[in-house]
Order: sequence, then structure tokens, then C-alpha cells
Amino acid sequence: MRGVCNLDKPYFIQTSEPALEKPIFVLGLPGFGNVGKIAVHLLLKFCGAKPFAELYSPSFPDYVSVNSKGICHMPRYEFYAAPMEKNDFLIMTGDTQPSFDDVVAHYMLCSEILDFLERKRCSFVITIGGAPITEEKAQVYVAATSPRLALEFMEKGAVIYSKGRIVGATGLMLGLARERNLEGICLLGATTGLRADRGAGFSVFKFLMKALGNEVKEGL
Amino acid sequence: MRGVCNLDKPYFIQTSEPALEKPIFVLGLPGFGNVGKIAVHLLLKFCGAKPFAELYSPSFPDYVSVNSKGICHMPRYEFYAAPMEKNDFLIMTGDTQPSFDDVVAHYMLCSEILDFLERKRCSFVITIGGAPITEEKAQVYVAATSPRLALEFMEKGAVIYSKGRIVGATGLMLGLARERNLEGICLLGATTGLRADRGAGFSVFKFLMKALGNEVKEGL
Amino acid sequence: MRGVCNLDKPYFIQTSEPALEKPIFVLGLPGFGNVGKIAVHLLLKFCGAKPFAELYSPSFPDYVSVNSKGICHMPRYEFYAAPMEKNDFLIMTGDTQPSFDDVVAHYMLCSEILDFLERKRCSFVITIGGAPITEEKAQVYVAATSPRLALEFMEKGAVIYSKGRIVGATGLMLGLARERNLEGICLLGATTGLRADRGAGFSVFKFLMKALGNEVKEGL
Amino acid sequence: MRGVCNLDKPYFIQTSEPALEKPIFVLGLPGFGNVGKIAVHLLLKFCGAKPFAELYSPSFPDYVSVNSKGICHMPRYEFYAAPMEKNDFLIMTGDTQPSFDDVVAHYMLCSEILDFLERKRCSFVITIGGAPITEEKAQVYVAATSPRLALEFMEKGAVIYSKGRIVGATGLMLGLARERNLEGICLLGATTGLRADRGAGFSVFKFLMKALGNEVKEGL
Repeated sequence: MRGVCNLDKPYFIQTSEPALEKPIFVLGLPGFGNVGKIAVHLLLKFCGAKPFAELYSPSFPDYVSVNSKGICHMPRYEFYAAPMEKNDFLIMTGDTQPSFDDVVAHYMLCSEILDFLERKRCSFVITIGGAPITEEKAQVYVAATSPRLALEFMEKGAVIYSKGRIVGATGLMLGLARERNLEGICLLGATTGLRADRGAGFSVFKFLMKALGNEVKEGL
Repeated sequence: MRGVCNLDKPYFIQTSEPALEKPIFVLGLPGFGNVGKIAVHLLLKFCGAKPFAELYSPSFPDYVSVNSKGICHMPRYEFYAAPMEKNDFLIMTGDTQPSFDDVVAHYMLCSEILDFLERKRCSFVITIGGAPITEEKAQVYVAATSPRLALEFMEKGAVIYSKGRIVGATGLMLGLARERNLEGICLLGATTGLRADRGAGFSVFKFLMKALGNEVKEGL
Repeated sequence: MRGVCNLDKPYFIQTSEPALEKPIFVLGLPGFGNVGKIAVHLLLKFCGAKPFAELYSPSFPDYVSVNSKGICHMPRYEFYAAPMEKNDFLIMTGDTQPSFDDVVAHYMLCSEILDFLERKRCSFVITIGGAPITEEKAQVYVAATSPRLALEFMEKGAVIYSKGRIVGATGLMLGLARERNLEGICLLGATTGLRADRGAGFSVFKFLMKALGNEVKEGL
Repeated sequence: MRGVCNLDKPYFIQTSEPALEKPIFVLGLPGFGNVGKIAVHLLLKFCGAKPFAELYSPSFPDYVSVNSKGICHMPRYEFYAAPMEKNDFLIMTGDTQPSFDDVVAHYMLCSEILDFLERKRCSFVITIGGAPITEEKAQVYVAATSPRLALEFMEKGAVIYSKGRIVGATGLMLGLARERNLEGICLLGATTGLRADRGAGFSVFKFLMKALGNEVKEGL
């Protein structure tokens, strides 16, 4: 069900209230090599996650997406719930990022999402994206909100992503989370970025599941 | 007659109140191959539609258009009324679209238009544009707010426009209409887009008239 | 003297109150071939006009201009008063136009200027700019707020500027003036636009003076 | 310590209150040849300056910077205090400038900084940047808020920067300072701008220290 909506700021449409206990938030959006979106789609499938909310914003691009049946929908972020044995997940993906031209709007959108996550008692923020490949070997890079966390995930096999920048929502959500005293990490899959990189997306997904103590069968 | 106007948001100047009963809204603006604007101009001529309102906005480009007599006017959307036997039309066209850089302004402008349409008791939204040609054959594509509508217009001869995007007001107006529980379709005429494509515009116009049960003589 | 200023909207600093009776407003800003600015500078010199106000705006570009003595000043519009025998002038020029990216800010800035002009009881708006040359012969083109005015200045030797666009403040000020029931014209000097075109600027200046009944000696 | 922050406007996080007496404000940000940032980093080192405040803004770019240990932080301006014998310094640097697209936001950000400086009783504003090299000889150029100041620094060895523009925060802060009746200068180091120009940065730093009566040993 949909209702009339205000268009001067982002707004949520929540269709159900999932029972999640201190969920880990995982974000993957379109971007470099599409690594974030691919990794999160593998996670959604693995967890059997269920959609429960959508976020619309006037700072999203002014187009509609049309699905395979010819039905249009506005650009949006989608939220999924996945209650799991070891830890619950609250997962966000989408088909867009805000317009590059309006950074103030992007800050405010990420801030609305963090408000939403705090209401859902999220305990940890994980953002996933792609990083330009610099060595032959495929890598998963990690940046974090604290030295302790960076070390912890380095010990689990990631390489410290040092002296770089993480652009778009992937970086902004982690940086703003830190400003609120939330903890979190960003995982970046090394990719040439030339096309959607399913391999890099799977590497990040597998690393994340192993790091969090979930078993993933290779045949996924 | 004109008056002093506020410039911090869009504003309407309505010159008369047309007697329209649950009109169908049809929109065609400048764009790819100019298909939307051409199709709507054919519709205006076919219906003998009468102008009754104009919409100005500070998010339109900062130029004036000058007509053949040297008279300048601000960029604007124009609204026409056409009471017809089978169904009334409320038609919108214009000589511009909002600046590409300010998507928030575009969302708000489309929202103002939808408010206006609801006050006029519009029952259905039709947006018209161009789509890049992908096959030899000229086609009219359709996207819709519901599977039922997409099928209905497919049966009338249009091809489902699947897995694409519809940019600008042509897409945004349909997507935002759907958010308000309004029904509607977008018709896209296949065109190379290299120049104003009168053929594609006419194809969409003819399809629309046939689909709505109006007879069009070929010699228009 | 300067004071602390708000920076969330345009603001005027007026240094004196000139005695002007229903002045004609003339605007010339940097632009195509710099025709507008050159013509207005000739007018300032011809009239012995005196500066009396400045307009600052946060939508001007974020740089300072530095003069020949190394003194910086913010981008601004400058207003000059010229009480003359036949008709008084209120003249505006400047070293910039608002950022191309923020059209809403440009609409609001022009609106503030029109408020200012109405307080000064301006009776007529003249904007000056350049137009791409299309024939061998140098021309002065005219666009107007009414057919009567377009004809009047055509009879005085200008060519109707038909079916074109006039971009930036040169067009916007005239279009918005018309929305307020103010009368006015835009004069465009034909120019290749490759460099500052003093010849085109002088042609427009001379045409304007003759049309308003002022005598200009060739040696200016 | 960090707290929850509003994101609709710039905000300061101040960690201590330095004892500064009518400090001279010195600003150097990333830019042409990185001269400003390099000169200010030499000054920070020379003075043993201590950080005491940070400024965040939603008009900064939407990325996070990651340091060598993998820790992310939001783009920000950093403020340092340096109580010195001859004159105290309040020094600002950062890793970014606001988005080029939103000049209104840049004006407001600079205005917030000037408010902050006035609360700290800053007596003088010095901005440092790079200027394109035009002669063989390396030069330090000066622009100022008054003829007296321009002459004073010319006598100390700088060349008057005449008839140019100073873009970004380097120019805007000086121009807006002048609007508030604050005094100040801009020092520009001549550079090809092709890479970070440590030589030009050092020249400006050395000139500044000499002009203010501080002794700098060559081996810094």
C-alpha cells in the first residue's frame, strides 16, 4: 500500500516490523565494479532475507526504473530483515545513489538512514564497495571506525585500506556512523571495475561470512 | 493579465476554468527525438484543445524564449483543455525541462503538477517520450503503473518496455503518480533521436488515439 | 563603509540616494562578445554616471577579483545613477553572473533587483547583450515585452530577434520584468563572440542613444 | 569525544580552549600546486601548533578519508593554536574544499568560519595559495584588503597581484573578511601547479615569517 508523500525530504515506507535483535547493518549499492550490490545480493539470498521497508528521496535521480514486466518504480533504497542464528542482519541495497551534484542532500539522506538504524537498535555498520585493483592478487580491503576493529579484520585476512578515499554512500555512511559513536567497517573488493565483477563481490561476501562465523558452501 | 509573482517556488497562472470531466492527462515535453512534444502537438491540433493555465518555476533554465514577433516569455509549462466525446483531455506541454542539476527541484515541480491534476480530478496519467531504436521495426513501447495496464496496452499493439529507465519528467511524473495511487502509462516512440522525429511522434499519437477509441484520419 | 552581512541571500549596500525621476534601467553584464558590458561602460562614460549601490550574493562565484593595486573585492553588481536632460538612467553592470548551476538562485537574484528597481520607480527595462552573427552585416537585434515595443524599435532601425533564446540575466531580467507588467526591450549586438567586441558594443550604444533621442558624437 | 550531529549546516567540534591573544589567522587548503597546504604545514611544524577544533559541513564532498592505519574520518577543516612570542597564530587547514557546484554553501561555510574567528578575537586574516607562474623568477604575490596593506607587503618583498582572480576559500575568506571590516592579505606562491610544489610552499612560508618578524632557520 502506498500513500500520498511529501517530496521535500527523504521518506520511509515501512511495510512490516521485523523482529531483529541488535542487527548488523550491511549496505551494498551500485558502484565501482558493482561489488557492493553483488555481495549484498549474495547475502540476501544466503539469509533468505525479507523486504520490510523502502526509502524514497527527492535527491535521487529523476528517472523511473522499469522492471521486466513493464512496471515502473521510483528510485529507492530497499531494506531487508534477516534473523539468523549467530547474528541478525538488517540489509540495505538499491538501484541508485543520490545525484553527484547535491552533496548536502547526500549527507542528509545518510543521516536519515542512521536515525532509522538507531531506532532499529543496529549495533554495527558494514558497508561494501569496490576498490581499484593494484596488485595481481585479489584482495579484500578493510577500513574501520577504530584501530581495534581494523586490526581485528586484518587478522581475519583483510588488508588495511590505507591513505585512500572511499566515495559515495559506502564511505559517507561509515564516516557519519563514526561521528555518532557507532562502530563499523567498510569492506572493499579489489576489482578492475570494467564490468560488474561477480568474483570480487563473492570474495567480499565469503570473507564477511567467515569473519562473522557463518559457514558458506562454495556452490552458492 | 499577469501579476507580481513569488519566485521561490513553482506557481500557476490559470486564465479560465475548463469544464472537464475526469480528464485523461497527457504530457509531452522536449526530449529524445522530440517525440513527446510532437505527439502532444498532434493531439492538441486533433482535439482543438484550448490553453487555460501556465506553470512557471525558478528551477526552469535562466533564459527567455523569443517568438517570431520578437516577444519574449519565460520558460513555462502550458496546460490545455479538450472536452471530447469519448473522454476529456487535460494536456501539458512546454518548451523546456528543469535544469538537470537540481533533481530536488524537479521532484517538487512534478509534485505540484500532480496536486494540480488531482484538483482537476484527473483519472489517468499518460506521459509520452522517445526511446532509442533497437530493432529495424518502428515500435511503440509501454511502461505502466500496474501489470494489468501494461498487458492491456500490449494487447492493443504496444511492446512492453522492460528493464530500462525513463528519464526526466516523462518518467518522474509516472513514477510519482504511482506513489499517489494514480494509474497511468508511458508511451515511448522508438527513434534514432538524431533529429526531431515527426514519424515517431505520429506513431505514438496514432497508437494512443486508437487505444482510447478515437478515430484518426491519416491526412492529419 | 561596510558592515557585517548576512550571507544566506542577496543584499544591497547603498551609499547614497540619487535623485532620479522615473529612470530607464539599463543592464549590461559580461557575456557573449562582452557586448553588454562594453555598451554599458560607454553609456556610463557618456552620462558621467555616479555609483550609488552594490549588490552582493552568495550565488555569485566563490572567488575575489583583484584590481590593479592589489585590492580584492567580492563579485558584485554595481548600480550607477545618471540624471539626464531627456531621461534619467539607472545603470547596472558587474564583473560576473551567478553560477550556471543554480538557476533558482538566479531567479531570486533577478527578482531582488526588480524589487529594487520598482522602489526606485524605474519606468522601463533595457538589457543589452550579444547575439551570434548570422549575416555579413552588423545588426542590432531587438526583443521586447510587447508587439508595440518590438515594432517601435524596429522602426528605429533594429531587426526583430525572432525564434531564439536570450540566456542569462540579459534574458531573465526582461522575462521577469514582463511577468510584473513592466515594459522593456533587449538589444543584442551581432558579434562573432570570439573576443571582447568593442565594435558591437558601440553599435548597440549608439543605436540606444539615437532611439532615446540622445545625440552621440562619433569621437566618444 | 564525538556526539550526534546535525547535518543541515556546518558545525564545530572544539576539544579545548586555547589561550590566544588577538591571534593572526592563517589559512592554507589543498589547491593549485598545493602551495597553501604545504606552507601551512611548515608553519604548524615551526610553531609546534596544537589542534583544538574541527569543522564539519554537509557541503564537503561525500567521501571519507582513510589514514595509514585504516581509520576513516569525514572531510573537515582543522584548527590549530600556536601561542608565540611575537604574535599568536590560529591556523586552519584541511583535506578538502566544498563542492565546486554549491557556491551558496561555500559562502555560508566561510561566513561560519569568520564568526568563529571573531569570537576568538582574530585581528588579521592571511590566506595562502598558489598562482600560475608567469615569469622565470619565483615570486610571492600579495593581494590585500586595503592599499596600505598591499604596499606594506610589497615593501617587504612581495609582488602586487593585480587584475586577477583568487578562487575558492583562499579568495572568498579574504573578500568576506573585508566585507566585515577585517584586515588581511592573501599570499600566492608562483608555481607551475603540475605537482605538489614544496619549493613554492616554502617560499611563501619563509616570506611570511620574515614579514612578521619571525626568524626561520634554512634547515627546517
